[in-house]
Amino acid sequence: MKELPTTPVPLDALRHASERLAPYIVRTPLLRSPRLDAVMGGLAFLKAENTQLTGSFKFRGALSHLLAHTPAERAKGVVAFSSGNHAQGVALAAKVLDLPATIVMPDDAPAVKRQRTEALGAQIVPYSRLTEDREAIAQDLAQKTGALLVPPFEHEWVIAGQGTAGLEIVEDLRRYGHVPDILYCCCSGGGLSAGIGLAVKGAFPDCRIVTVEPEGYDDMKKSLETGARVHIHPQAPSICDALLVPTPGVLPFRVLRDLGAVGVTVSDREVRAAMRFAADELGQILEPGGAVALAALLSGGAERRGRRAVAILSGGNIDPALRHDILG
Amino acid sequence: MKELPTTPVPLDALRHASERLAPYIVRTPLLRSPRLDAVMGGLAFLKAENTQLTGSFKFRGALSHLLAHTPAERAKGVVAFSSGNHAQGVALAAKVLDLPATIVMPDDAPAVKRQRTEALGAQIVPYSRLTEDREAIAQDLAQKTGALLVPPFEHEWVIAGQGTAGLEIVEDLRRYGHVPDILYCCCSGGGLSAGIGLAVKGAFPDCRIVTVEPEGYDDMKKSLETGARVHIHPQAPSICDALLVPTPGVLPFRVLRDLGAVGVTVSDREVRAAMRFAADELGQILEPGGAVALAALLSGGAERRGRRAVAILSGGNIDPALRHDILG
Repeated sequence: MKELPTTPVPLDALRHASERLAPYIVRTPLLRSPRLDAVMGGLAFLKAENTQLTGSFKFRGALSHLLAHTPAERAKGVVAFSSGNHAQGVALAAKVLDLPATIVMPDDAPAVKRQRTEALGAQIVPYSRLTEDREAIAQDLAQKTGALLVPPFEHEWVIAGQGTAGLEIVEDLRRYGHVPDILYCCCSGGGLSAGIGLAVKGAFPDCRIVTVEPEGYDDMKKSLETGARVHIHPQAPSICDALLVPTPGVLPFRVLRDLGAVGVTVSDREVRAAMRFAADELGQILEPGGAVALAALLSGGAERRGRRAVAILSGGNIDPALRHDILG
Repeated sequence: MKELPTTPVPLDALRHASERLAPYIVRTPLLRSPRLDAVMGGLAFLKAENTQLTGSFKFRGALSHLLAHTPAERAKGVVAFSSGNHAQGVALAAKVLDLPATIVMPDDAPAVKRQRTEALGAQIVPYSRLTEDREAIAQDLAQKTGALLVPPFEHEWVIAGQGTAGLEIVEDLRRYGHVPDILYCCCSGGGLSAGIGLAVKGAFPDCRIVTVEPEGYDDMKKSLETGARVHIHPQAPSICDALLVPTPGVLPFRVLRDLGAVGVTVSDREVRAAMRFAADELGQILEPGGAVALAALLSGGAERRGRRAVAILSGGNIDPALRHDILG
């Protein structure tokens, strides 16, 4: 793997990624809902990345990363660590390029994410989130086998890949003829919010970028407030299994700080309400981590009035039991 | 209202409709699923019109029709007859243009469709499907009030509007680099299948157009087989409330016959299985009528092997009770 870049990600990297990814990815929609507009008292636009291949945006970044390497660099296969969505993204990206994939995944990851990753032909190496270091295991595997490590967020090519969703948002907003005031994006390591933030802020400089995290997992919010990366020690569980990284990525944090982003949090209760809204009003089945941005939009106060807001629906991989518990 | 055209709908009408609709409609995705590819033994592409505004493709045709009229022609408002999806499409199209809307709707239409139509500001006039003629009621209303009647399928401008979904399919297939062998589309009056058939056949002349109807409601299938419009007398109910028109539209039938389309039917059991597949594998909540094309794709035999197939997911407006009954 190449050295991490020390400069922020240029917009051209997103455009190049977009061209490379075009034949492989789903061009996802920017959903509208008169009912949601009425609830927020403004105009809402929802980027449905849950309709992306593998059920989340992660396929964009993983494939962007692999396509930026030479065939020789990726010849020995790929390895990654992931709680489940990046796993599927990497597994499908490897399958598309006919490469073997090995994924280091927590032993408490949702069963549906494990099964779907295996169904895409990847080999899974389970680890304990409480006692083991997934990054060390993955790097050890990469060194032993010569496989290419695909980072979940800490690389320009990954951020550029996720940012291609932002370029599509810009394209659709221009077609609709609307300039956004605020953009809500889920945040774990920060790759998606950095990539989409770059694209949207590049086109609409006055748009405010807001990262959304589960309550108690607000490392990006705290980091943006203090100006330096914060490591958190969660006291309570969250239903948002996709958003449990305890500290922002170096590069995503730098990008988001430079964009003037701010952070907010949402409760499990607000996430469940957002998931029900997405199912009942939009016919979209979201996973908890995929609904936090909509939760922030729905639970926001009077400051939303008259605004034009974009929210990212980032993923839909949910275990049937939890889906039935929340959606009935 | 202008006279019905006596010539087939030209492709240019679809392109003009596409330009007019662009600022208003959701540019819906052409979904991919490795799991579905594996099940059918080929490549599947699903046009998710359930993600369109109002939860079905009907908004396209209704707005296309209204935008093709002059402000003077539509000044006294609009009227339509519909089992629910066209109702919402017309209601939102009227709202967008700030016009009053009146909808003649069967008294056994799904409650969610009634409620959503009313929420969009339309007035509902209920009628009995067993004893009354909805078309006569609507035409009577139009004559009395001077309102513009928006037909659900029997007009070039409506077919052209629905066909804009087909132009998007063509665009996405070209981006993916695939030429389709077969296209499955739900069929009631035939407006959607005629419009999409025109667009797809225009770009890919060898693609076979297949209309899909519920068992016992196969008036289009029989009409295409005999070469003339057939009126059917259903013996049993169907869960596909959106697809119960007993005879094809004159213009849609002529278009589909000229395209060499053929018809197939699916059972309620196959529709339920397709709805479960869409929810579990794609995170999409479909209504029964919106899932018949996927049902045909899933239940097809060996002739699908190695094929590239497109299926339209046409709508997602389903009552919560039926959704819970089918999806759990």
